[in-house]
Amino acid sequence: MDNMQCPKRTLMDYCPDIKVMDCTLRDGGLVNNFAFTDEFAKDLYKANIKAGVDYMEFGYKASKELFDPKDYGKWKFCCEEDIRAIVGENDSPLRISVMADVGRCDYQNDILLAQDSVIDMVRVATYIHQIPAAIKMIEDCKQKGYEVTVNIMAVSKVNTDDLYAGLELLARSSVDAIYLVDSFGSFYPEQITKLAQKYVEVANASGKIVGMHAHNNQQLAFANTIEACRMGISLLDATVSGMGRGAGNCYLESLLSFLKNPKYDEVPIIRFVEKHILKLKEEGVVWGYDIPYLLTGILNSHPSSAIKFIKDRRKDYCNFMQELLDVE
Amino acid sequence: MDNMQCPKRTLMDYCPDIKVMDCTLRDGGLVNNFAFTDEFAKDLYKANIKAGVDYMEFGYKASKELFDPKDYGKWKFCCEEDIRAIVGENDSPLRISVMADVGRCDYQNDILLAQDSVIDMVRVATYIHQIPAAIKMIEDCKQKGYEVTVNIMAVSKVNTDDLYAGLELLARSSVDAIYLVDSFGSFYPEQITKLAQKYVEVANASGKIVGMHAHNNQQLAFANTIEACRMGISLLDATVSGMGRGAGNCYLESLLSFLKNPKYDEVPIIRFVEKHILKLKEEGVVWGYDIPYLLTGILNSHPSSAIKFIKDRRKDYCNFMQELLDVE
Repeated sequence: MDNMQCPKRTLMDYCPDIKVMDCTLRDGGLVNNFAFTDEFAKDLYKANIKAGVDYMEFGYKASKELFDPKDYGKWKFCCEEDIRAIVGENDSPLRISVMADVGRCDYQNDILLAQDSVIDMVRVATYIHQIPAAIKMIEDCKQKGYEVTVNIMAVSKVNTDDLYAGLELLARSSVDAIYLVDSFGSFYPEQITKLAQKYVEVANASGKIVGMHAHNNQQLAFANTIEACRMGISLLDATVSGMGRGAGNCYLESLLSFLKNPKYDEVPIIRFVEKHILKLKEEGVVWGYDIPYLLTGILNSHPSSAIKFIKDRRKDYCNFMQELLDVE
Repeated sequence: MDNMQCPKRTLMDYCPDIKVMDCTLRDGGLVNNFAFTDEFAKDLYKANIKAGVDYMEFGYKASKELFDPKDYGKWKFCCEEDIRAIVGENDSPLRISVMADVGRCDYQNDILLAQDSVIDMVRVATYIHQIPAAIKMIEDCKQKGYEVTVNIMAVSKVNTDDLYAGLELLARSSVDAIYLVDSFGSFYPEQITKLAQKYVEVANASGKIVGMHAHNNQQLAFANTIEACRMGISLLDATVSGMGRGAGNCYLESLLSFLKNPKYDEVPIIRFVEKHILKLKEEGVVWGYDIPYLLTGILNSHPSSAIKFIKDRRKDYCNFMQELLDVE
């Protein structure tokens, strides 16, 4: 991983250290239970290569002890053979990532040695209280030869002292990158400025980089991502048309058109939207900004209640807001 | 108008100088040709009062010589009696605004003396080359007793020298507020930072304030509005559910939930969405972020071609992008 840093960038900069991660299959898989066709996955893989995207995340490495494969599409598990069916030996500059949740992944058995796998990067997703367990996973994956990131989830619910302590622990681990994650889409850009400063400061001091994963509850996913980028965060997550849980993510097509590196090109992604995303939407797969997600974003709550509200076809937003306030 | 300034604010500030303008009938009227029911207008008026909104724009003061009233809903013209049918004497703190386009408004005849009108504010919309004509309108409206703002449109197409010269001319006029307008939704927050600084500097030096009117082509309308606010811009435009031409505007419900002044409450607006906006959407009235608007935003073009593309039910985004590049 290229550790070159631009701590404070401007719009016109072309920063070669910036890398883009497409998480459509992974975060988008949370929308449709990973029910993507192989054609979808293959076309997305090809589109990402053409678009100059740096990483493509295929899904989760979930434990088959905890989750029954009959209940999910294959990208919940990301078996080696399933990824290879899409990418072959991956003879391309696009690097392949999977996510592994602390406590939901049988990483000792399911994550192979990197030399035996087409996977390049493992992203360890952790809550703040799981960081010691996350570090065990990080060290295991590093020893196996992977690039490893850690994604601290739900930090908008974490008090600052705990967060800083967690960051310091991670800084002493072998992890390559630490992710700032706005799980609930509740941060404003001004809060991202401060958090990004802290993450970059701690990470850079130990030779690590920082990533950004945003949610679009307040229609700020793209704005927060470019603010993070301005503050020196260099690994930027996005999904095609923002496909992701609830309000979804930063739109990959917007991000690529924003970045100045000429290797990035949004056109292959827009072609992919024409062919695949419009069809998904016609089939009734629903994600993206809506008032229930705005409300969970404002109230800094998990989007699950908003997802249920929309699934139940409810429209009584004000009642829903009161329900959220009762829970808080 | 309260001229108290907070030149650089933080998120936690409660700045009493910030004012919110609801433009739903006006910018939203460009979506449905101003075909709002009286019930819609009345309920919006009441919702705005309950929500603590400071100004409500009813529509345009368009010339009936240039535009045939048979072809438009009444808010294209905003006759005194039509506004009074909704607000009576407007016995409320909500102030009422109309927009008057340079060259499209017979302002000498159609704009009454303020003492004879329920309208409080006239917003003069001008292109950069029309500023001398705009100043004539501004002085006419000021003499008649109105609060007057000037909205310089399409500044993303204006060179910096011309823009600064225009701002200086307006600073010497009697106008109360100068608006930064992102007509094409093409600005990133970092550009808003710089523009806002300049507008605030020039305006404050002559005792004026600055307004912000954003479009959502890149899903940055809200982010750009709060960035403008952070830089000292104090008159913030928004519309219910972002209803406005093309990709629409900053969402009023998001903006109210962001602002710290306890007089603001997004709940009445969300109730209004439940009752009226969902119905409009069911009836097929279409606005809001979509790829064609992203493309005109990226390419800094007027949204009219994207509006036509969507009306024609085309989905060939990449062809459309090439058409836009041919025109540029």
